[in-house]
Amino acid sequence: MNYDIKTTELALTGKQRIDWADRFMPVLASIRARFETERPLDGFTIAACLHVTTETANLMKTLKAGGAEVALCASNPLSTQDDVAASLVADEQIGVFAINGEDTETYYQHIDATLALHPTITMDDGADLVSRLHSEETNPALVEQVAAGTEETTTGVIRLKSMAAEGVLKYPIIAVNDAQTKHFFDNRYGTGQSTLDGIIRATNLLLAGTTVVVAGYGWCGRGVANRARGLGAKVIVTEVTALRALEAVMDGFRVMPMTEAVKEAELVITLTGDIHVLRKEHFEVMKDGALIANSGHFNVEIDIPALEALSIAKNTAREFIEEYTLADGRKLFLIGEGRLVNLTAAEGHPASVMDMSFATQALSVEHIAKNRDSLQKGVYDVPVAIDENVARLKLEAFGIQIDTLTPAQEKYLNSWEMGT
Amino acid sequence: MNYDIKTTELALTGKQRIDWADRFMPVLASIRARFETERPLDGFTIAACLHVTTETANLMKTLKAGGAEVALCASNPLSTQDDVAASLVADEQIGVFAINGEDTETYYQHIDATLALHPTITMDDGADLVSRLHSEETNPALVEQVAAGTEETTTGVIRLKSMAAEGVLKYPIIAVNDAQTKHFFDNRYGTGQSTLDGIIRATNLLLAGTTVVVAGYGWCGRGVANRARGLGAKVIVTEVTALRALEAVMDGFRVMPMTEAVKEAELVITLTGDIHVLRKEHFEVMKDGALIANSGHFNVEIDIPALEALSIAKNTAREFIEEYTLADGRKLFLIGEGRLVNLTAAEGHPASVMDMSFATQALSVEHIAKNRDSLQKGVYDVPVAIDENVARLKLEAFGIQIDTLTPAQEKYLNSWEMGT
Amino acid sequence: MNYDIKTTELALTGKQRIDWADRFMPVLASIRARFETERPLDGFTIAACLHVTTETANLMKTLKAGGAEVALCASNPLSTQDDVAASLVADEQIGVFAINGEDTETYYQHIDATLALHPTITMDDGADLVSRLHSEETNPALVEQVAAGTEETTTGVIRLKSMAAEGVLKYPIIAVNDAQTKHFFDNRYGTGQSTLDGIIRATNLLLAGTTVVVAGYGWCGRGVANRARGLGAKVIVTEVTALRALEAVMDGFRVMPMTEAVKEAELVITLTGDIHVLRKEHFEVMKDGALIANSGHFNVEIDIPALEALSIAKNTAREFIEEYTLADGRKLFLIGEGRLVNLTAAEGHPASVMDMSFATQALSVEHIAKNRDSLQKGVYDVPVAIDENVARLKLEAFGIQIDTLTPAQEKYLNSWEMGT
Amino acid sequence: MNYDIKTTELALTGKQRIDWADRFMPVLASIRARFETERPLDGFTIAACLHVTTETANLMKTLKAGGAEVALCASNPLSTQDDVAASLVADEQIGVFAINGEDTETYYQHIDATLALHPTITMDDGADLVSRLHSEETNPALVEQVAAGTEETTTGVIRLKSMAAEGVLKYPIIAVNDAQTKHFFDNRYGTGQSTLDGIIRATNLLLAGTTVVVAGYGWCGRGVANRARGLGAKVIVTEVTALRALEAVMDGFRVMPMTEAVKEAELVITLTGDIHVLRKEHFEVMKDGALIANSGHFNVEIDIPALEALSIAKNTAREFIEEYTLADGRKLFLIGEGRLVNLTAAEGHPASVMDMSFATQALSVEHIAKNRDSLQKGVYDVPVAIDENVARLKLEAFGIQIDTLTPAQEKYLNSWEMGT
Repeated sequence: MNYDIKTTELALTGKQRIDWADRFMPVLASIRARFETERPLDGFTIAACLHVTTETANLMKTLKAGGAEVALCASNPLSTQDDVAASLVADEQIGVFAINGEDTETYYQHIDATLALHPTITMDDGADLVSRLHSEETNPALVEQVAAGTEETTTGVIRLKSMAAEGVLKYPIIAVNDAQTKHFFDNRYGTGQSTLDGIIRATNLLLAGTTVVVAGYGWCGRGVANRARGLGAKVIVTEVTALRALEAVMDGFRVMPMTEAVKEAELVITLTGDIHVLRKEHFEVMKDGALIANSGHFNVEIDIPALEALSIAKNTAREFIEEYTLADGRKLFLIGEGRLVNLTAAEGHPASVMDMSFATQALSVEHIAKNRDSLQKGVYDVPVAIDENVARLKLEAFGIQIDTLTPAQEKYLNSWEMGT
Repeated sequence: MNYDIKTTELALTGKQRIDWADRFMPVLASIRARFETERPLDGFTIAACLHVTTETANLMKTLKAGGAEVALCASNPLSTQDDVAASLVADEQIGVFAINGEDTETYYQHIDATLALHPTITMDDGADLVSRLHSEETNPALVEQVAAGTEETTTGVIRLKSMAAEGVLKYPIIAVNDAQTKHFFDNRYGTGQSTLDGIIRATNLLLAGTTVVVAGYGWCGRGVANRARGLGAKVIVTEVTALRALEAVMDGFRVMPMTEAVKEAELVITLTGDIHVLRKEHFEVMKDGALIANSGHFNVEIDIPALEALSIAKNTAREFIEEYTLADGRKLFLIGEGRLVNLTAAEGHPASVMDMSFATQALSVEHIAKNRDSLQKGVYDVPVAIDENVARLKLEAFGIQIDTLTPAQEKYLNSWEMGT
Repeated sequence: MNYDIKTTELALTGKQRIDWADRFMPVLASIRARFETERPLDGFTIAACLHVTTETANLMKTLKAGGAEVALCASNPLSTQDDVAASLVADEQIGVFAINGEDTETYYQHIDATLALHPTITMDDGADLVSRLHSEETNPALVEQVAAGTEETTTGVIRLKSMAAEGVLKYPIIAVNDAQTKHFFDNRYGTGQSTLDGIIRATNLLLAGTTVVVAGYGWCGRGVANRARGLGAKVIVTEVTALRALEAVMDGFRVMPMTEAVKEAELVITLTGDIHVLRKEHFEVMKDGALIANSGHFNVEIDIPALEALSIAKNTAREFIEEYTLADGRKLFLIGEGRLVNLTAAEGHPASVMDMSFATQALSVEHIAKNRDSLQKGVYDVPVAIDENVARLKLEAFGIQIDTLTPAQEKYLNSWEMGT
Repeated sequence: MNYDIKTTELALTGKQRIDWADRFMPVLASIRARFETERPLDGFTIAACLHVTTETANLMKTLKAGGAEVALCASNPLSTQDDVAASLVADEQIGVFAINGEDTETYYQHIDATLALHPTITMDDGADLVSRLHSEETNPALVEQVAAGTEETTTGVIRLKSMAAEGVLKYPIIAVNDAQTKHFFDNRYGTGQSTLDGIIRATNLLLAGTTVVVAGYGWCGRGVANRARGLGAKVIVTEVTALRALEAVMDGFRVMPMTEAVKEAELVITLTGDIHVLRKEHFEVMKDGALIANSGHFNVEIDIPALEALSIAKNTAREFIEEYTLADGRKLFLIGEGRLVNLTAAEGHPASVMDMSFATQALSVEHIAKNRDSLQKGVYDVPVAIDENVARLKLEAFGIQIDTLTPAQEKYLNSWEMGT
């Protein structure tokens, strides 16, 4: 087995941490148990390009338990947890090619190393591996051997759909990102809690009684708005679509333009997916001492250059917090340089959140294995049955049972929906 | 002007009540004000078959203000408010054909009376008018003159889609029922409050500390579950799909099978759209004194015949409440004969709820008027722009302003969604 | 048995309604069951002056079950439910002296009629009976025979404390009003729900998305503020004490002066116990269409004369709602003439609320019976043990068990609290 | 100026952190600003024995600004933040006697060093300084010079009341601990948030959908229960008093005995102030994988010896988390060794919480200075006016204004409360 990691000496720490995450990934664990018996991935080789974290480790173990040969490289040069890589190599005999802080050249060498295994399934997080596989620098024979792949992220799905639209995507991809169980956990529940967790860790702010502005009332925004209210904050929502704005109102939130909202805000959190949600005109009227964080998209939601331009001084007020002093003496505090605050100042999504999307990954790979001959080129939704199955396994992990339609109910429902 | 109503003597009461409702229908009022100036419906004749209520009256006034000739018949023989009919005739000079308690023959005569005006647009609530118009008993020339129509209800949409599928539907229908602004208000917010309102009026129950079982976690169910929690109840949710059940869990509700849930319930509310959600096996293990209500679909959600069969005595315990005494001495209390409890024991949806769907009605009719030549036969969604417009008007009525995308933001968003 | 009621013909309706209330008064029912066995009130005669309602009827039945001879007169000439009086006389053989709408002379004759029984215990709601008993018009021998009494209301307690301070109160009174279990239910939970119930019945207002101003953050105010939030409203609190205002802020509510709050309010509810919380300066800046209700004290919280003075017209917009048209054209809507909105437009407190205070009444009377020789003149708190006992019985009625301190825990707690 | 600290080299870091805390202590800051002008403490010497933290530093600066000479020693040998001590000495010229990890002998030498200044006011956190001052080892002349003192903690107040009861307390003490503004923030809001903050940091647990058992429904318990619900958890409360248990039920929580609750719990948090709330009988039936934390009193709430005795293995699963493997294979996870989880795994109370109690400290010291001649020996409540003042300053810091009673309202209120 080939591998390229920093050291195997960290394996014990890595294993401990992987096991801790595993405690909160019961859905994936139940799939792994079934895979051990059924071995649905026998004969398949999977090249995975993912963040090398404790949760990913549990996915890799699941794929291997299913019979697959697995190789893992990093989807981001900075996110690799070297102890996790060590444990995967030392304890699980899984080939990992990832070193935290690796340079760009090494990053691509590591992708190539996983491709050298002649994968029949790819698993991607941002479509870097698929791009590399389709590029001129890669042996064109390799891509022909791939049955299908999966993609974890929105960005990756966009890139892949673009490739499909141009007719260059050479095999089917299942867009795990769009599964309902992923959205549930990632956006509403995961981001809701972890955003505030990051902010509290960074600031030690008491949310009760605080006025918090949440920019954007999509799934992430409503997650954060609800959790902030649940912690006693007075929440104001800003929006650009009337429908979502109205939903926020009907959910009991105040809604107003950002220029008004920032005048009351002690904390502003952006979750819109767009650029410059906070910009010069807002910095100019914000309250002295206001905290600013982003938990939406990249660090473009806050116009940091504009903030810099308005400032006469900049200091680190506390770990993760930059203090900007404006010409009029007001101070604004930017948390985590405007990057995703739950990743910067906390631990990102809890393992139980990743459990859902990685369970969908595992079941999607199984679906590929079972249907390899019938899948067509293109980007596909996760089959509804997988979504429902993941939800059902999660309920079982909670020890929760639900009702089943009686035959009479099923018949009534069908007849009614049919309109006969 | 022809009309057929019970009496015009009730006009004053009717007008007072119509005006009260109008206070809570600001979106429709703003459309009416614009219609008065723009007269977009000049030259059109509208035959409307709707519940003759105060809210409907305000819709009729709006259509007339837009320039249309309007005639109104009842979509249900029992729901006509005779004072409203009186005011529409006496104060608004709108031809109404509706008498509360009218027999079936009169009911259809009244539909025919509106058709006799040679409508160019139809407005329906359950598709009875459209069916009549397409039937053999109606002059086939009439249907040929109709540009298009609208339909308010789920049931009507199903019937019309069935007609479309069979190729017999002769003109376009806009399914107002499926507008987002309708769903928002009707299901989540309207049903949420009015269901509990009906139950409290019927029982004078204190919800705080009470265990309430909500069957179904669709939009109606989650509306009721949230409001019951907001009033201090301990809420249990039952479901048949794992995805919705999981959402309920993640929203902090207990989820379990109905057979378990009823053992703890002091109140059970069904909102599933299916039959026999409460049935023999549940009645047999319910707590003594449990209250039962339906706010979902017809009065089939509760298997009342099974309840009758299990009972040795039945009495009226209080207005709207039947007390069933079972053989083992337990007593179960059925509210409002299992019919929609917010209609039976309260006033149905607040006017501000109807404001949204009737605003959509008015704008859909305007859309028909402006696009009469380009619309094709079939059943259509409400144009997204109308939905967004209704939401925007509602925000304006609340005095709420929202943000607008800057050109840079719009460009970024488009580029990102395009994947370029 | 003497009695003076409107008619016995309404007994059946009365009994049905008393039985319905009884379903929601399990604590009182469990006390009644014990009283039937233990007969702690044997030999006592109780003169009760209370609102003659279904809940009071169940209290009377309980006292009689305990062995007491009971006579009941009305504590308010307008609150008597004649059907309840009928059932008490016809079905329970309890002497009632109360007719709805009776004149003042009859009102006092009825009090005298209960005193004619030579009561040994009095039960009062506003201290009218006790006052009469101490007055010159009453045979002074009567008061000498009284062992002790109870008082239900704040107003009554104030009057009695005033009498005690002046040295004229001739026997001990237990102030049921001050029991914790009464406060819990009456103010926080009872008023919270029933106030909004009354407003919804009167207006059919949808609370979701509505801006509601709650004046006063005492127990009633926080009850209403929480329930309004639970129904989706945006709630603003006004206060005059900084401590309570700060609590409201920390609980996530906006707090501001009334002159600011009314500019945003669609509904204002007063619950302060003081006068003119809404007055000229507020009416002058309220939003057009604002709704006004009181659920605090008497109808003095809203300065109605000032509202009248500002108005150029006044009409009944709907049952329970007066429309005031101001000179500038704005309309303000006063609900229930500014009287307690939960009594005016709904059913007052749910029976389960009265269950708590009437259980405390029954146990206080038992306490009097058992300690008649050791009680001293004056006004007393309800013994803590009764409060805890009522709470325990209520938990039992809910089927809820709680923990008990182990001997080691009890010892630790005592030592710690003792500081040894 | 004498002092004894670890080093002055950490002063810069200390100052940065003190300044950060100061941002969230606006009430204390406003008092400090006033003190600088009014100098109410001129001529007084204060010996303070408190945790040497950033918040305490801001209190010391405030006292000094008021004109006092100040010396500070540690109230706990392990809680001293050496960088804070450094900044107080180097930047503020305040004599600090505290070194993190000092032994018992040094601890008492440091107390003696502050007493050597001949304080006229003492400020204590646990009554160690007062005890020392009253002991045989201390020059009896010193205690005679003290005008009065303050005490921050429950434990200290109990010790001091015990001293007062025995007649040995030689000067007046104001029990800052009992101020309402302290309770508000410490227990309900501070503990509520910081407990869950500590647990999330220790475990990375997603609270949504999780079953959390909260032992105790005092102010701390209800704080945690509400915040856990606000984060989406399903919360069960356990209690030993019926009144509190009933409040929990009426607030919508499930209540049951601990032996039942632990069968459902994924997380148990104790906040009772008593011992062995979780013990052998509970460990024996807990769910596999359950997390256990304490945020109430000392680490006695969980019977750790019993847990050890039941276990066949013990490992560190993750920082702050001990994994106990029981004989039947179940694993239980103890967070932070059962010590206060918000201190162990997070940062304790946010600065804004300490702002309130330290503002009360500063105002109580001013009260002592102004009333030194009229105060009597004993332990006293904080004057109500100080409580209201702190609340008012906090509202001002939030930029919130409230109403004031009109003369007419004041008169009405007084007359009503007087019963005239």
